[in-house]
Amino acid sequence: MVQLTPNSSFSLTIRVKLPNQTGMLAQVLQAIGDAGGSLGHIDLLERTHTSLTREITVNASSTEHAGTIVDALRALPQITLLDISDRTFDCHRGGKITVQSKLPLHSQDDLSMAYTPGVGRICTAIAQEKDQVYRYTIKSNTVAVVTDGSAVLGLGNIGPEAALPVMEGKALLFQEFGKINAFPVCLATQDVDEIVETVKRMAPVFGGVNLEDISAPRCFEVEERLRRELDIPVFHDDQHGTAIVVLAALINALKLVDKAFEEIAIVINGAGAAGVAIARLLQKAGVKTIRLCDRNGLISRDRTDLNETKRSFAVEQSGTLADALKDADVFLGVSAPGVLTPEMVKTMASDRIVFAMANPIPEIQPELIQSDVAVIATGRSDYPNQINNVLAFPGIFRGALNCRAAAITTTMHLQAAYAIAALVGSDELHHDHIIPSVFDERVATAVASAVEQAARQEGISHC
Amino acid sequence: MVQLTPNSSFSLTIRVKLPNQTGMLAQVLQAIGDAGGSLGHIDLLERTHTSLTREITVNASSTEHAGTIVDALRALPQITLLDISDRTFDCHRGGKITVQSKLPLHSQDDLSMAYTPGVGRICTAIAQEKDQVYRYTIKSNTVAVVTDGSAVLGLGNIGPEAALPVMEGKALLFQEFGKINAFPVCLATQDVDEIVETVKRMAPVFGGVNLEDISAPRCFEVEERLRRELDIPVFHDDQHGTAIVVLAALINALKLVDKAFEEIAIVINGAGAAGVAIARLLQKAGVKTIRLCDRNGLISRDRTDLNETKRSFAVEQSGTLADALKDADVFLGVSAPGVLTPEMVKTMASDRIVFAMANPIPEIQPELIQSDVAVIATGRSDYPNQINNVLAFPGIFRGALNCRAAAITTTMHLQAAYAIAALVGSDELHHDHIIPSVFDERVATAVASAVEQAARQEGISHC
Repeated sequence: MVQLTPNSSFSLTIRVKLPNQTGMLAQVLQAIGDAGGSLGHIDLLERTHTSLTREITVNASSTEHAGTIVDALRALPQITLLDISDRTFDCHRGGKITVQSKLPLHSQDDLSMAYTPGVGRICTAIAQEKDQVYRYTIKSNTVAVVTDGSAVLGLGNIGPEAALPVMEGKALLFQEFGKINAFPVCLATQDVDEIVETVKRMAPVFGGVNLEDISAPRCFEVEERLRRELDIPVFHDDQHGTAIVVLAALINALKLVDKAFEEIAIVINGAGAAGVAIARLLQKAGVKTIRLCDRNGLISRDRTDLNETKRSFAVEQSGTLADALKDADVFLGVSAPGVLTPEMVKTMASDRIVFAMANPIPEIQPELIQSDVAVIATGRSDYPNQINNVLAFPGIFRGALNCRAAAITTTMHLQAAYAIAALVGSDELHHDHIIPSVFDERVATAVASAVEQAARQEGISHC
Repeated sequence: MVQLTPNSSFSLTIRVKLPNQTGMLAQVLQAIGDAGGSLGHIDLLERTHTSLTREITVNASSTEHAGTIVDALRALPQITLLDISDRTFDCHRGGKITVQSKLPLHSQDDLSMAYTPGVGRICTAIAQEKDQVYRYTIKSNTVAVVTDGSAVLGLGNIGPEAALPVMEGKALLFQEFGKINAFPVCLATQDVDEIVETVKRMAPVFGGVNLEDISAPRCFEVEERLRRELDIPVFHDDQHGTAIVVLAALINALKLVDKAFEEIAIVINGAGAAGVAIARLLQKAGVKTIRLCDRNGLISRDRTDLNETKRSFAVEQSGTLADALKDADVFLGVSAPGVLTPEMVKTMASDRIVFAMANPIPEIQPELIQSDVAVIATGRSDYPNQINNVLAFPGIFRGALNCRAAAITTTMHLQAAYAIAALVGSDELHHDHIIPSVFDERVATAVASAVEQAARQEGISHC
């Protein structure tokens, strides 16, 4: 199995009681280090004449690894383990978001304005002119984060309840990076017609719809139908968010190797929502040669197992992923852990670029090919060049809501990607820095403004 | 037309520039007073050698009345009106609620725990044991406020968009009084089957469903079917919230006149959601004689225009509301402005009780019958004895969510009413104080604890 570096998604808070003697803490830290744990905060909670109580934060690389660390501590004489808690589970307790009032509510006056009877006047104003709903309600700044739980992260079809923590996380990112209210809508149906009709019935409250973790090829139909039948923007983040950020990163990576979109050959491994959307957006950006692969190898004209979407990318050549990669300039993986080998990478063209974006474990560990490639990117935050949708969707919706865009178009996708790429100046551009950090505060604003401008140029903005 | 007292639902913020001379402010205030406006804050914004800028808050009794006040100010010489804004519209701009993060999100560590890759571990835990959704997501403390916009306040069928300000207001009250996340669900359908199926499909995110402003008789079927088909509590506030608070107030009013539920005759005017629910709950509380009226008069056996629900309350006697009221002990109005006359009230039994709860304008102005009745209550905050659902629903859901009750039953309704009534001690009980204030902080806690206890006794709590 691939060994990951310790990270905060497997982080423990360990409370221990030590004798008040020199060298005891060192012994504990040594044991954690020997077990491969990575130390965070070390706090002193209580000191008595005879003992100290400390709280230690430790990152592990997996649940099993966390267990090993705890066992190592248990084996120490004189040390008492008081409490072990998992920080990721701790921070999820009771959910991650909350619905709050923007108004004070301390007096009858407050109540009479925010609720009855005053609210009746607002209702009447909207009943007389429906468009006023954008002025006097949350609609203008609220997005539904809609899933059916059919393709959640790399976990597959785990259903709407199990998908909810991801949707809450998304809502949290919408607020943090886009100042947008987002609310999770986890549907207890995976039928395309039912998803479409349910979202349409709920639409009055929302200014936009972010589709999330719906499996291909159903996601294509759901998005297409909702785009056609709703008057608010609809955006499937797994498709377009990923495609936008990949394009942004690739623009900068190609600058480093001095190649042009028109002349390169790109292999995309993974023909789900993300793979297909990346292929489509890259075509719009000028790429001529794309070889799309799924788990059965290259998508070629002679295959009989292809759905309509995949068939539109079929090429003459047939074979395996390894065959497809020969002389390719770029590998883009949105597939599964470990499917790319160093040997395959070595058959690619010179100055090769590898984006191994499977989550949480990439198609290849970057360490294995560091010296063989010009640029490598992953979906992970513990390596350079993190390809993260957070760079796109908050700004995309911020821009669309700002100008009440009727839709989010391919032109907006392209402009958003160019805006993200442009934030890495030529003086900063480096094989370890092709894309801004998700914490770069300029990103959402730059994306929003690119999207707004595109909407106005396309004539689909409302204000 | 009935003239109401000025109140904050028609409140203006007026900015005026006055010469810096003695007596100018008095002149402005005099003009407002003469026009019938009620003064709130008076702030000084700017003082120069020659002029003062002041901001004055004024309550009016209607939109027209607000216009009269402004005209009176315009007519004053030497005074410049700089700005007039409507406080109710102001406070609705951009909506009244917001979705916020409960976690910090400042570092990669924060992201890795709240979102990918850490969140995947929470998803897996829920996928393995669905019940964990109550522990690690918002479900355990989140209620859907569902409407189809068909019977909004007294405004009628104004549709889902125009209903949204009320649902946001409700969400705000849920948070303020019950510490519950509530989110508005305004459906673009008024078909019973479609409402039921849509709510069922959205249910995974929610720990409860509060139905709101759905017209009768469809609301009865929607509630009944959702109660049967969902495993989370469903509560139609217009029915049961109103019924609970009416029962609570009536318990205390009857103490004042020393009458018992079993011996009194009650006339309920209005046979919509609220009227029917009040009648049903009063029967459970022991009332034997109820005469229900709708706009066509007494609901009697000889009428041929009755739906099934109304028919279940039909009596032998027939006639008008006036006929029904003869010798009645209690009038409960959930109907329309001005339908009750002082003459009708005088035909009631001695020590008569009148709850005139039509909103915003009651069935009769309290001033007209003050000396003819033992107790009068309304739905308004500017008279004593406000019958307000806010006394019930936050505590009802707080209690149901606390113990994961599978349903909200009639026993819980009764216990909630008893708990509310009990908060007015015998030493405080007075014809002008039969019900606690909505700002009485004991209310939600008392209701929640009564509901929890009832749930446990009925064996429908889950924790």
